[in-house]
Amino acid sequence: MAELLGNLLVAQSGGPTAVINASLAGVVTEAGKHECIEEIYGGLNGILGTLNEEMIDFNDEKASTIRALRHTPAAALGTCRYKINFDKKPEQAAKDMDRLFQLFEAHNIRYFFYLGGNDSQDTANKIHNESAKRGFEVRVIGVPKTIDNDLPVTDHCPGYGSVIKYNATTVAEIGLDVGAMATDDGSCCIVEVMGRAAGWIAAGTVLAKQGVAANPPHIILLPEIAFNEAAFLAKVKETVATLKYCIVVVGEGLKNAKGEEIGADKTRVDAFGHAVLSGAADKLAEIVQGKLNLKTRTVKLGYAQRCAAHLASKTDADTAFAAGEAAVRAAVDGSSGFMVKIVRRNTSPVSFTTDLEDLNNIANVEHFVPRDWVSEDGFMPNEKFVAYAAPLIEGEVIVPYKNGLPQYAVLEKSPVDKVLAPRA
Amino acid sequence: MAELLGNLLVAQSGGPTAVINASLAGVVTEAGKHECIEEIYGGLNGILGTLNEEMIDFNDEKASTIRALRHTPAAALGTCRYKINFDKKPEQAAKDMDRLFQLFEAHNIRYFFYLGGNDSQDTANKIHNESAKRGFEVRVIGVPKTIDNDLPVTDHCPGYGSVIKYNATTVAEIGLDVGAMATDDGSCCIVEVMGRAAGWIAAGTVLAKQGVAANPPHIILLPEIAFNEAAFLAKVKETVATLKYCIVVVGEGLKNAKGEEIGADKTRVDAFGHAVLSGAADKLAEIVQGKLNLKTRTVKLGYAQRCAAHLASKTDADTAFAAGEAAVRAAVDGSSGFMVKIVRRNTSPVSFTTDLEDLNNIANVEHFVPRDWVSEDGFMPNEKFVAYAAPLIEGEVIVPYKNGLPQYAVLEKSPVDKVLAPRA
Repeated sequence: MAELLGNLLVAQSGGPTAVINASLAGVVTEAGKHECIEEIYGGLNGILGTLNEEMIDFNDEKASTIRALRHTPAAALGTCRYKINFDKKPEQAAKDMDRLFQLFEAHNIRYFFYLGGNDSQDTANKIHNESAKRGFEVRVIGVPKTIDNDLPVTDHCPGYGSVIKYNATTVAEIGLDVGAMATDDGSCCIVEVMGRAAGWIAAGTVLAKQGVAANPPHIILLPEIAFNEAAFLAKVKETVATLKYCIVVVGEGLKNAKGEEIGADKTRVDAFGHAVLSGAADKLAEIVQGKLNLKTRTVKLGYAQRCAAHLASKTDADTAFAAGEAAVRAAVDGSSGFMVKIVRRNTSPVSFTTDLEDLNNIANVEHFVPRDWVSEDGFMPNEKFVAYAAPLIEGEVIVPYKNGLPQYAVLEKSPVDKVLAPRA
Repeated sequence: MAELLGNLLVAQSGGPTAVINASLAGVVTEAGKHECIEEIYGGLNGILGTLNEEMIDFNDEKASTIRALRHTPAAALGTCRYKINFDKKPEQAAKDMDRLFQLFEAHNIRYFFYLGGNDSQDTANKIHNESAKRGFEVRVIGVPKTIDNDLPVTDHCPGYGSVIKYNATTVAEIGLDVGAMATDDGSCCIVEVMGRAAGWIAAGTVLAKQGVAANPPHIILLPEIAFNEAAFLAKVKETVATLKYCIVVVGEGLKNAKGEEIGADKTRVDAFGHAVLSGAADKLAEIVQGKLNLKTRTVKLGYAQRCAAHLASKTDADTAFAAGEAAVRAAVDGSSGFMVKIVRRNTSPVSFTTDLEDLNNIANVEHFVPRDWVSEDGFMPNEKFVAYAAPLIEGEVIVPYKNGLPQYAVLEKSPVDKVLAPRA
């Protein structure tokens, strides 16, 4: 493959994670090693800011800032949920694509890296296809990111290990607290975690048990398994009878047998028309308190769980960084139209490496927790799940503290001069 | 003061914290240095288990376990909310007191330490008074504990520094996340923290700003200041217009001008007459989304905030340990009927020492955030509050990790032989 001389553009998309900036650091660090890559640009707010020609120059960032991205949560470049949508908005999508390639030509962008989840990989794939169609060579590689862990093909998604490390720690700590308060009256605490369709995040809190059956959590409710109220109440009752308390973890998208989300408030919808999910834990608390007369409290971790870089998994952050590096190496070597995937090596201890997967095999396919990774009653992930998830939370990212608070990277964001007319 | 030879009993009471076990470690460690203290017992589940003669022998615990208590959350001995209540239940209270002194005599308990908040200090005071009345010398010292920071006299309460360190970190991280997602549509995130009457916990999240006005949180709502919906909505709107996002922190007990909690839903009760759980954050989200048409999400940290030992303040844990040590030293020196208080030394940096305060000056007095420590509009603690709170979150407690999770102490709980008849 001939050497391709030109500039690099990297952008972040979708919901942030604790380690998507580690992938960004991987891209920028690896890019600096290759002479064929001239300028290293960051697109602000994903494809949305990029279409507005809002780009920054990474050459103006301090080396210490790039290093600090490895422990900085959220998305340092900003992110978006904007999608170049040929299915639903073909005219707008065609315009967007024209604009994007004008920008690529104007700034001689020959390497494009998109860090994101399902939708972002789909966008990366479309840009790759356009490149061939338009005869303008730009090598496009997707870097996976999502706390939901719902991408196919890759062993796991960077971001997932950190969210379950934080959530498992939190559930273990809450268990100690509620257990210490347990009296003969009993009590229940319901912790709501993210996960609209897939239950990977909820399932990951099984690690808090550390192999001890009596340890919390005592019940985990996954969106993939229809909620059975009677069986759930029986299990809560049995747990409280034995331990005097019960810790329940619920994925926000838990559904009843009809497939309706039990926590959905159908009167409120977000910009995508999704019902706003705010109430799975509160709804369950109403049921437990109302039917069992058991003191019940709720915790809703919400955004806190996906940005908790103070407790990120080192395995996760290192894998995220490696995925960014691998993307650049692949592109320099001539690849385009691929996503970096994480591959598990069943060594002892388990370790991870990266490989490439055709973007056509990824976009818009969702990956769920296998039914045979969960106990028969559906209330607890089993040893197959634990074997899968345990290696993902290994190790702690070291974060510097000042005045008692973690110190995170802030980019200078030196803007790249605009040369295009403003977007219509 | 004559040397008093006998056994020691220590118990924990009320809601757990991240550092109440550090105070326990302080008591046990200091007690080991004094020959007049023969046996070191722990009462299980506070006064409630103690009345049932449920005690454990600390001499059977490993030294490594005692040390690990310094970084272990919740209450290792278990706790209770039981109160010896002479006002409301005088007969039961008299019985309880008889029982307690039978136990003290039977086990030759001459030193009693009660680690807890307001109610617990009241209990300690009553036991101290009974000692003189009954002519059985037992030296009683209270050790303060409460995340709410609502005890008078002491500079602050052990437990408070850790909860605000965790909450401020969480709010800073959520701010990065929501800020990274901010688009022209704007968004709002409302974080609900503990604090029913006093707003110390909510106020403490001002530290997340690290002195930068534009940093989150942008609005802090304290239970002490009546909620003004119009002023609040104007402030949210103004913040979103400037920054594209707004992070709000609310103390769970936020009240309207009539003194009614805004998060209480009195219209819905379950079969047992419990008010249906809703919250201040959800109620505010409804208001913001409904009146400003602004995408709004909520986080309810609940129990997670008071047991987050993985992010405890070293200043807080060290002060909690020192308070336990000081209690034992005071009792050995002949004091009884006191609470250990924390005293601030306005050195640079600020440091803390301990002193004693008569329990009569403490019990059942609540301490609120001074109005002149909050901005005129009531939405942000000012530089006086920051000067007060900042030293409390300094330093990080080092917690050991195994398999990616923090490892906390678990007591062996070797039981002390019962000699009394079972409690009637």
